[in-house]
Amino acid sequence: MKVYVLRLGHRPARDKRITTHVGLTARAFGASGFVLGDIHDAKVTSKIKEVLKKWGGEGFEVKDGVSSTEYIIEWRRAGNIVVHLTMYGIHVDDVIDEIRGLNKDLLVVVGASKVPRRIYELADYNVAIGHQPHSEVAALAVFLDRLFKGRELHFIFPDAELCIEPCAKCKKVVECGAKKQ
Amino acid sequence: MKVYVLRLGHRPARDKRITTHVGLTARAFGASGFVLGDIHDAKVTSKIKEVLKKWGGEGFEVKDGVSSTEYIIEWRRAGNIVVHLTMYGIHVDDVIDEIRGLNKDLLVVVGASKVPRRIYELADYNVAIGHQPHSEVAALAVFLDRLFKGRELHFIFPDAELCIEPCAKCKKVVECGAKKQ
Repeated sequence: MKVYVLRLGHRPARDKRITTHVGLTARAFGASGFVLGDIHDAKVTSKIKEVLKKWGGEGFEVKDGVSSTEYIIEWRRAGNIVVHLTMYGIHVDDVIDEIRGLNKDLLVVVGASKVPRRIYELADYNVAIGHQPHSEVAALAVFLDRLFKGRELHFIFPDAELCIEPCAKCKKVVECGAKKQ
Repeated sequence: MKVYVLRLGHRPARDKRITTHVGLTARAFGASGFVLGDIHDAKVTSKIKEVLKKWGGEGFEVKDGVSSTEYIIEWRRAGNIVVHLTMYGIHVDDVIDEIRGLNKDLLVVVGASKVPRRIYELADYNVAIGHQPHSEVAALAVFLDRLFKGRELHFIFPDAELCIEPCAKCKKVVECGAKKQ
């Protein structure tokens, strides 16, 4: 099962950091790609690519400027599944097993400002990470954490330059080669 | 067990939205309060209070302008526990049961820019939500989700004005009174 994340809409001045967090969360929580819909923003894509270079994830695809609606329609046409995260949807606990059980590639869509009604209709699943307002970053993280049953937090990026040695009271970053020896 | 969230450092222009997401995630994932350290930012606190008014959470405390270091020291002096979320720490899966088992009030600290070494030393636990760079919003959400074992996504805010009726393909917001009848 391959997972891509599509960020719908983005206002560069206002959303730059949130969109970057969405992209980094996608990578860290096991997605295979991040797509910023409807706009180009080199600041966001270059920040994510910088992380890929240092911390690994060569295969992680980063795209921007794609038409969100067309991307979703294309994804469905290929027989894959579209999950839109929204506080108005069905509670994640009521659908996550079903979604995982489909064993199909997933496009996880997260909104920025007001999401058009069309997206709710196009999505196979509108899924709520609880029915409270919070954050698309939080929603994405928890959705992927539930989808992958927490295993994603142990994924290893074999092409990483930098690795962390867990430390109770300090910061310890090593070259991954050194760690592997 | 009561949980507070402390956001360390904040650059108003750059971090406003991320800090707001941290505050909203704290509320939605079961914390009892949100503290913005070392700076006042009425835009952030008023946005969170607006959500409290509409979606409930009267008891949820929102503060800013508190000295982060003093707040942490005070929290520890009272015999409570300080957990700092950082990718350099001990993996959440290796400590979450121990932290939950303490059954003490927790202060969960999340950083913005570079976190001073002093914070790593002051914290009882430096906890990594995986050892990859991602987002303090994602880290907070997953930490609280693990701490409360997912039950937090079903919490009800009894004083909410607005409630959501889960919907597969639409948005349905009702007055909570109407829903309760």
